[in-house]
Amino acid sequence: MPKDAALDALASLLGERLSRSKPDLAEHGRSESHFPTTPPDAVAYPESTEEVQALVKICAEHDCPVIGWGAGTSLEGHGLAVQGGVVVDFSRMNKVIEIRLDDMDVTVQPGVTREALNEELRATGLFFPVDPGANASLGGMAMTRASGTTTVRYGTMRDNVLGLTVVLADGRVIRTGTRARKSAAGFDLTALMVGSEGTLGLVTELTLRLHGIPEATSAGICAFPDMGSAVTAVMETIQMGIPMARIEFVDAATAQAFTAYSGMEMSQAPHLLVEFHGSPESVAQDAERFGEIVAEHGASPFQWSAREEERRALWALRHNGYYAILASRKGARAVVTDMCVPISRLASAVEETQADIAQSCVPGPILGHVGDGNFHAILLIDPEKPEELDEAKRLSHRMAERALALGGTCTGEHGVGLGKMAYMEAEHGDGWQVMGQIKQALDPKGIMNPGKLVPQG
Amino acid sequence: MPKDAALDALASLLGERLSRSKPDLAEHGRSESHFPTTPPDAVAYPESTEEVQALVKICAEHDCPVIGWGAGTSLEGHGLAVQGGVVVDFSRMNKVIEIRLDDMDVTVQPGVTREALNEELRATGLFFPVDPGANASLGGMAMTRASGTTTVRYGTMRDNVLGLTVVLADGRVIRTGTRARKSAAGFDLTALMVGSEGTLGLVTELTLRLHGIPEATSAGICAFPDMGSAVTAVMETIQMGIPMARIEFVDAATAQAFTAYSGMEMSQAPHLLVEFHGSPESVAQDAERFGEIVAEHGASPFQWSAREEERRALWALRHNGYYAILASRKGARAVVTDMCVPISRLASAVEETQADIAQSCVPGPILGHVGDGNFHAILLIDPEKPEELDEAKRLSHRMAERALALGGTCTGEHGVGLGKMAYMEAEHGDGWQVMGQIKQALDPKGIMNPGKLVPQG
Repeated sequence: MPKDAALDALASLLGERLSRSKPDLAEHGRSESHFPTTPPDAVAYPESTEEVQALVKICAEHDCPVIGWGAGTSLEGHGLAVQGGVVVDFSRMNKVIEIRLDDMDVTVQPGVTREALNEELRATGLFFPVDPGANASLGGMAMTRASGTTTVRYGTMRDNVLGLTVVLADGRVIRTGTRARKSAAGFDLTALMVGSEGTLGLVTELTLRLHGIPEATSAGICAFPDMGSAVTAVMETIQMGIPMARIEFVDAATAQAFTAYSGMEMSQAPHLLVEFHGSPESVAQDAERFGEIVAEHGASPFQWSAREEERRALWALRHNGYYAILASRKGARAVVTDMCVPISRLASAVEETQADIAQSCVPGPILGHVGDGNFHAILLIDPEKPEELDEAKRLSHRMAERALALGGTCTGEHGVGLGKMAYMEAEHGDGWQVMGQIKQALDPKGIMNPGKLVPQG
Repeated sequence: MPKDAALDALASLLGERLSRSKPDLAEHGRSESHFPTTPPDAVAYPESTEEVQALVKICAEHDCPVIGWGAGTSLEGHGLAVQGGVVVDFSRMNKVIEIRLDDMDVTVQPGVTREALNEELRATGLFFPVDPGANASLGGMAMTRASGTTTVRYGTMRDNVLGLTVVLADGRVIRTGTRARKSAAGFDLTALMVGSEGTLGLVTELTLRLHGIPEATSAGICAFPDMGSAVTAVMETIQMGIPMARIEFVDAATAQAFTAYSGMEMSQAPHLLVEFHGSPESVAQDAERFGEIVAEHGASPFQWSAREEERRALWALRHNGYYAILASRKGARAVVTDMCVPISRLASAVEETQADIAQSCVPGPILGHVGDGNFHAILLIDPEKPEELDEAKRLSHRMAERALALGGTCTGEHGVGLGKMAYMEAEHGDGWQVMGQIKQALDPKGIMNPGKLVPQG
């Protein structure tokens, strides 16, 4: 059995850092989502690029699958060893290698989480803005092209990864990008790797853009009569060039869940939560102008503050959104969907999704990143009732198809993993075959995270 | 001769829109740079994606090289048919297909120039910001990953192309990206194509991000005792989060050339030219704060204005920089270099380059995009003296090597073409071979712009 030979060689390489303990395999066989538990054959805990390289060479020699693992927070089963093999857990590669203040960049190992990085940066006046909600690892965030609440101002991982060190399927190590802010020197291998979900290689170092912590921040909230007026207000704000750092919406069902969870009174209506970054004068002015725009669209008075504690309370509300929604149905488990459309289609996309959910036995409050046209229904299912999981999958399927029909994408930020494979051909046409050709060229044996992203077989 | 068979078939397809006239071949065999004239075997003028597809299929059948051609403004010989074949001139595919105001995006054919697009957008309140100087075609700008003066605020073509229609080497047509602002659905084929210089396919449609024309603009200029203090002032401005829309520097030699060309009096010192976009209040505040920062670094009083005519005069100066420098040496021809480094290395990179040029027989004023760490020496050579071209190449070579030694890239915005092939291995290591593997997978016959970008033979 070639896999056994691989495991023996890996054990020689890593010693006790190759684990085959049942609890470890189980822990690395589960996901945050509804996918069946799929334990790998072993879990490796490398400590350096060189070890990852040696590990991949062994796996290549024995045709043994290699699957990267960050914080385990992905929602589409990216880390599941569906063909067995070795899960490479990067938790021991969690060092911030170098912070360069003048260049506003940082080089980190892939196991550093975004919160750990920002903690490390605290005294510098700089921060890393990409915020997917979960305290994900930066390697995982790069590999799924993560984004989140701050994308409207600071971009996704695509925009904030300057370069990568990648161990390829044949054990070669490449460094993509440079520390220059831009380059026109050939194919953009950094961008090719960001979002590749470990199917082309394992990332062992990342160089990331940092941003200055804004001198001042203002944040606020208001309610709207309907989604359409909220979206129109946001489009006008963008078109007027008022720079929003965050612009999140929640639907009426979510507002209700927030009220129950936090005690903060919110009307049962769609709400926008917004934040501005800048100087004390500019964030006040931005908030005032935003207040004028939303008033023209029937919103409740825009309540905003530049005080840190009020801002924190507002975003704690948003960041706890998942848990607030989960608490709104006792004993429920969540199926989290993810679609993204052109902003002009956002209101109808949300409304059609709400109508779908209203006709279903499964509740599904909605929240999202209105500036990006990206939203999530948190479908709440009874884990004891398989028919509710089926219903959630049906609703999720309809959302993905709706996204494509509206000129959007089946996943704005969660990635393909196992959950969105079924939509890749519809979304990309022959482009999906092109992805397969690239995969075939760089991983002809198909050992890197097999069963994901590209056409199979 | 298979090429003759291809040309016959192309003539049947395109009729008079396949040109073999001597002047046409000569026009499409020259470049803006010092590369020898290399006329193709024919020039094709397609009018649709379908025609491009049919054309590529014919060329694939007969192993005939296919080279895209936009406005002919590239500086590294990208469009030269170094192995013969057909140049595909996109000048007849110059339609703005659809402007979507709500989504702030536009779909265009590749032959639309950036100035033509902005003219078309004039009444909408939106604009396309990427500004490489030349009135390049948008297809060419995408294929070279162009950038320019506004990159510090609006990004490069990488950041502003949402999706592409591409005819691949085997005649398949793919659409990359969607109209959603972001996606995590698989490999980023859009980013792979942007900057691929026509070596993977021909772009026949582009969907681009648009931005709101700012309500107000302020712009100004000041002189510095040396490059180091200018760069330090810019780094502080960025770290304080003051959003510059443009931040350009010129060295003392360039300031002298500007004075002679425009009559506007500038001291013989390094200068910064800066622009802010926002509300009337914010652009005034930004200019005032910038003035305070530069004063701390020994700059002359920062002279700024929010009036349109003064702003235009300032940027006319910058945009005519190339001609001003060219006029500073009678009868000279320019060799334009392009290097990009981390901003902390910019001052020393410029100073070392100036020292090099000072010891040379060739003058070379320097200007660049300080916010990106990107600069150009405009090396002025006597076209009658081949030894001066050799000297310019030597200086350019030293700049590229300096860029790599400082952690930067051999080309910030001009692209690889013929001129930067020699540095690809040093910059990318095995990554260059990976580019070659991708090329081989998607264009196994090597018909798309052969001789460029990837490892040869």
